[in-house]
Amino acid sequence: MELWYTEKHTQAAGITMKCRRTLFSQDSGIQRIDVIETEEFGRMLLLDGLVMTTERDEFFYHEMLVHPAVNLSSSPPAEVLVIGGGDGGAVRELMKYPCIRKIVLCEIDPMVVEVSRQFLPGISCALTENDRLEMVFRDGEQYVGENEGRFDLLVVDSSDPIGAAEILFTTGFYEKCLKALSDHGLMVVQSESPIYHLPVMKRIKRALKEAGFPFVRFYTAPVPTYPGGFWSWAVAFKDDGFPSKRRLFLPDEEIDRLKFFTPEILESCFVLPAFVKRELA
Amino acid sequence: MELWYTEKHTQAAGITMKCRRTLFSQDSGIQRIDVIETEEFGRMLLLDGLVMTTERDEFFYHEMLVHPAVNLSSSPPAEVLVIGGGDGGAVRELMKYPCIRKIVLCEIDPMVVEVSRQFLPGISCALTENDRLEMVFRDGEQYVGENEGRFDLLVVDSSDPIGAAEILFTTGFYEKCLKALSDHGLMVVQSESPIYHLPVMKRIKRALKEAGFPFVRFYTAPVPTYPGGFWSWAVAFKDDGFPSKRRLFLPDEEIDRLKFFTPEILESCFVLPAFVKRELA
Repeated sequence: MELWYTEKHTQAAGITMKCRRTLFSQDSGIQRIDVIETEEFGRMLLLDGLVMTTERDEFFYHEMLVHPAVNLSSSPPAEVLVIGGGDGGAVRELMKYPCIRKIVLCEIDPMVVEVSRQFLPGISCALTENDRLEMVFRDGEQYVGENEGRFDLLVVDSSDPIGAAEILFTTGFYEKCLKALSDHGLMVVQSESPIYHLPVMKRIKRALKEAGFPFVRFYTAPVPTYPGGFWSWAVAFKDDGFPSKRRLFLPDEEIDRLKFFTPEILESCFVLPAFVKRELA
Repeated sequence: MELWYTEKHTQAAGITMKCRRTLFSQDSGIQRIDVIETEEFGRMLLLDGLVMTTERDEFFYHEMLVHPAVNLSSSPPAEVLVIGGGDGGAVRELMKYPCIRKIVLCEIDPMVVEVSRQFLPGISCALTENDRLEMVFRDGEQYVGENEGRFDLLVVDSSDPIGAAEILFTTGFYEKCLKALSDHGLMVVQSESPIYHLPVMKRIKRALKEAGFPFVRFYTAPVPTYPGGFWSWAVAFKDDGFPSKRRLFLPDEEIDRLKFFTPEILESCFVLPAFVKRELA
């Protein structure tokens, strides 16, 4: 018998992967959580039936979620809030920065953390007892509203804008994020696929502007198991532009160990394909 | 009834697309040629059961095959040879350059041209009676060997390195290409997916070097319907480096109409992900 997992990215297109077995499958009360073992991409975490991350290609997404934003900070960020991100991939990347003294992971669903710890050790490896890490199992929108002026960087590592994560794409949420940032802080949000979700990207841009962020830029990278194989993120600055002087806050030995991000990508990832640039203009 | 076309990119992973109908299906003697109409990507051309191009995402591939190479020429290219490329997408992009006086399309399989003319008018639109275009239905490797010093640019728009196109990935073929180039000429070859075919990319690099090309560089771009959604190309120069002064040979009004390529991408596409850079070092 062959088992194949097929995810439809639209009503008429998707990806398909051969599976060895299902490792976990349960409803957390917030969402359906599955872990399956695929032949090609290793173990795969699904929320409400959609691929969140796989062992083989998670580094594309997590490195590109974290490293551009940290290194676009005007001064070394000290306190960082991750909203969502219960698999731990974003925290793992953030832990590589000596300048970051405190990471708060605010994940609405504790079962995502439990399951990732059990089945995805390579991704969740930084979700341990650690003075630099605080885990808060709460609604991200509420939590961010209670922490005015606290964070130098906000990382919104959400699922798609349907269900639990829908609120994380609204002007109201972004207003709270702006207030939660310190004076020169910035935020990064995953902003979906330029292939299938250009209208979502436009909505994110509008909502960030409406919320009062003076400077918003999108960047892209490939992520093979995500819709269209091509993904985007938005960085939103409390200041009104990129820092005038770019500095890398990541130690050289950590840069050498990365699998996707390079210092050159910090510049090149902002160069958008013509059709994306036009739509977002 | 629902029909779904599924292409396995490896034994254990692939893409799947809902189909409306099959428009064409025949063996040309060289290869199996199919055209199907998909809901998401429009009409799709398949050779030996693999997606070659689709109406919706062909511009990612064809623009990125042609525009970087032309604009990395040290002087405006006048004569260009396309090997493969019977769908006409590469010729369509090349025709946008007033400096290009002659394009030879050397396609081994006339049926690919016929079928593209009939079913893919948006891609094959430049394959018409035109003094600037010569169509040659021959083996590309032989043809290139008979044209020493003639071409300013060679575009190798081949299928995968199995079957008919296998020879187009060999040192012997690249040696003939080097000879077919004019003094400051260059060549671009599609070089497969960095996700699934890194060993092929390394082999292409080695073969180009062995053939005597002094300067070889890889670049990448997303192509949603290709394996991994992420594709690569190699440019190989008869000179020993990029031209010291970059000039765009494409008229501004044509640049404004492109859907993927922008002048900034001419630089940024060469910035490779860390894992690709390391493998090709």
